[in-house]
Amino acid sequence: MKPSDTIVRVYRGAITESTHRVHLAVVNTAGTLLHQAGDPHLLTFARSTAKLIQALPIIESGAADHFGLGEAEIALCCASHNGEAEHVSAAQGILGKLGLTPQHLQCGAHDPYHAPTAQAMREQGMVPTTLHNNCSGKHSGMLALCAHLGASPETYMSIGHPVQQLMLKAVSEMASVPTNQMQLGIDGCGVPVFGMPINKLALAYARIGSLDELDATRASACRRIIAALRQYPHYLAGSDRFDTSLIEVTNGRIIGKMGAEGIYALTIPEQGLGFVLKIEDGNQRAMYPAVVEALMQLGLLQELEVNALASYHIPSVHNWQGTKVGYIQPDFHL
Amino acid sequence: MKPSDTIVRVYRGAITESTHRVHLAVVNTAGTLLHQAGDPHLLTFARSTAKLIQALPIIESGAADHFGLGEAEIALCCASHNGEAEHVSAAQGILGKLGLTPQHLQCGAHDPYHAPTAQAMREQGMVPTTLHNNCSGKHSGMLALCAHLGASPETYMSIGHPVQQLMLKAVSEMASVPTNQMQLGIDGCGVPVFGMPINKLALAYARIGSLDELDATRASACRRIIAALRQYPHYLAGSDRFDTSLIEVTNGRIIGKMGAEGIYALTIPEQGLGFVLKIEDGNQRAMYPAVVEALMQLGLLQELEVNALASYHIPSVHNWQGTKVGYIQPDFHL
Repeated sequence: MKPSDTIVRVYRGAITESTHRVHLAVVNTAGTLLHQAGDPHLLTFARSTAKLIQALPIIESGAADHFGLGEAEIALCCASHNGEAEHVSAAQGILGKLGLTPQHLQCGAHDPYHAPTAQAMREQGMVPTTLHNNCSGKHSGMLALCAHLGASPETYMSIGHPVQQLMLKAVSEMASVPTNQMQLGIDGCGVPVFGMPINKLALAYARIGSLDELDATRASACRRIIAALRQYPHYLAGSDRFDTSLIEVTNGRIIGKMGAEGIYALTIPEQGLGFVLKIEDGNQRAMYPAVVEALMQLGLLQELEVNALASYHIPSVHNWQGTKVGYIQPDFHL
Repeated sequence: MKPSDTIVRVYRGAITESTHRVHLAVVNTAGTLLHQAGDPHLLTFARSTAKLIQALPIIESGAADHFGLGEAEIALCCASHNGEAEHVSAAQGILGKLGLTPQHLQCGAHDPYHAPTAQAMREQGMVPTTLHNNCSGKHSGMLALCAHLGASPETYMSIGHPVQQLMLKAVSEMASVPTNQMQLGIDGCGVPVFGMPINKLALAYARIGSLDELDATRASACRRIIAALRQYPHYLAGSDRFDTSLIEVTNGRIIGKMGAEGIYALTIPEQGLGFVLKIEDGNQRAMYPAVVEALMQLGLLQELEVNALASYHIPSVHNWQGTKVGYIQPDFHL
């Protein structure tokens, strides 16, 4: 490892036990690389960071208005949520407006991310449903688009389905990556995911916040998504979650979204910036520390804000007994 | 990343989504480095790979014989076990011979590693105990040593306790790392862990298998541990676990032990080799693929054996629905 490497260290006792490497691209709405670390053109999947972009066609198509989706519901469409009561209820609300049920969601079921909610459910003998899946908002939004298009709800997860084609088109346009150059894979929840260089994903995030070079319909949809997330940050993630805290702590100045395998994307609308950070090995434990550190070093977070995010910046490592045995700390200079 | 880097790729669809870096040291009983990758002197913690060495004082002190520990119980002292019925029963057996109870184990409780066992317990409303902790064998062995020494069982986890001092001495001697140069931390289960360069841990593993340079008492204890693990590989880990499979597939020719944070140590007694591999970022998902690939490239595993370990060598990645969405594959040439 070279001293110049952009890393996050996992300490146990006095020594580094494990190390994570960081790749970063910060761009403006023209796609110009303003700051970088590691490989700013690293090819990887956007995973759930694409959700903000994927929400665009739900609005642009008229589906959101047709079914009367509210701003909390729009926020939930962008979410990897905690499966808390409000999230489950909002997902059910969207489905109700479509005349559909949780059985129409094909995302599968998993325990709520929110540990106290999961624990309470176990104690009450409740089994998680598709509504508790962190992607249930996105899938409900896809079903809204599907219903509005009059397309089949059985196959909405297939890349050939009109819903997924509109998602691909939106991501492709926002990232300036032609659809035939977009790498495709399957996400944890079964739908297509989009693979592209991280600087291209950062471009999509610069644009969604600052609206440059966008036509009126798209600009309006972007404004609605950003406004929904500023108004309902809890619906983007939930209790004790970084995405929610980042919006709250910055009073909506920064809007960020985590994705599986250690990818993080954020927009700073007023500065016209898009920022994407990827932990090379995909481990989420290094992601929030690296994001806070990078934002701090770039002067994009103030000291009080960094302090408010301290538990994400330099988290403690505990053992089975709950004893603190180490901590995670970024070690780099941009 | 350079083409010469020793890496394991995590594929989703057609592209690499995340990458893990590998450090490797293979040494003989003189500590000579025979093969290497990355940094063969990387400083990190041995974690549970130290358990085979930590079992030495339990035997050398006479504690094992005094309390009549059997070979399956010796194997369990070396284990990060699955918490299956045999493991729980063997740990309880050791405690019974000491006149102690599971309440004397200070390792804490967690769900059995073996998912079907954990699931069955949940369905029956059973709560995991200290016996289900993957370290319950090691802790029971520590209590055996403690009882034999006539020391206090309340404080057996403290570094100043005679039990931990004997553990430190054994690890220090086997690795040729002076006790005052050994890095100390606290493990997931609360006891001290030992930090040293990976080539030094590899030396300890070369010696435990081939007995070179060891006095008669230590050589006898090493032989007993190796024999116990060859006879009872299931007690080292359990069903669907690499450590157990590696011994079974090689008919005891290779004996290896996993540790948390992506460290793997193994001995090939008949060749006088010790081998330690560390995933830089600590992620276990890359560890078994890298171990099998490295052993194969070094000619230490035969083709039929590699085939028998295929699910560890190139494991599939599945999503929530169980669909295969990718795979993990080593990409290096030693």
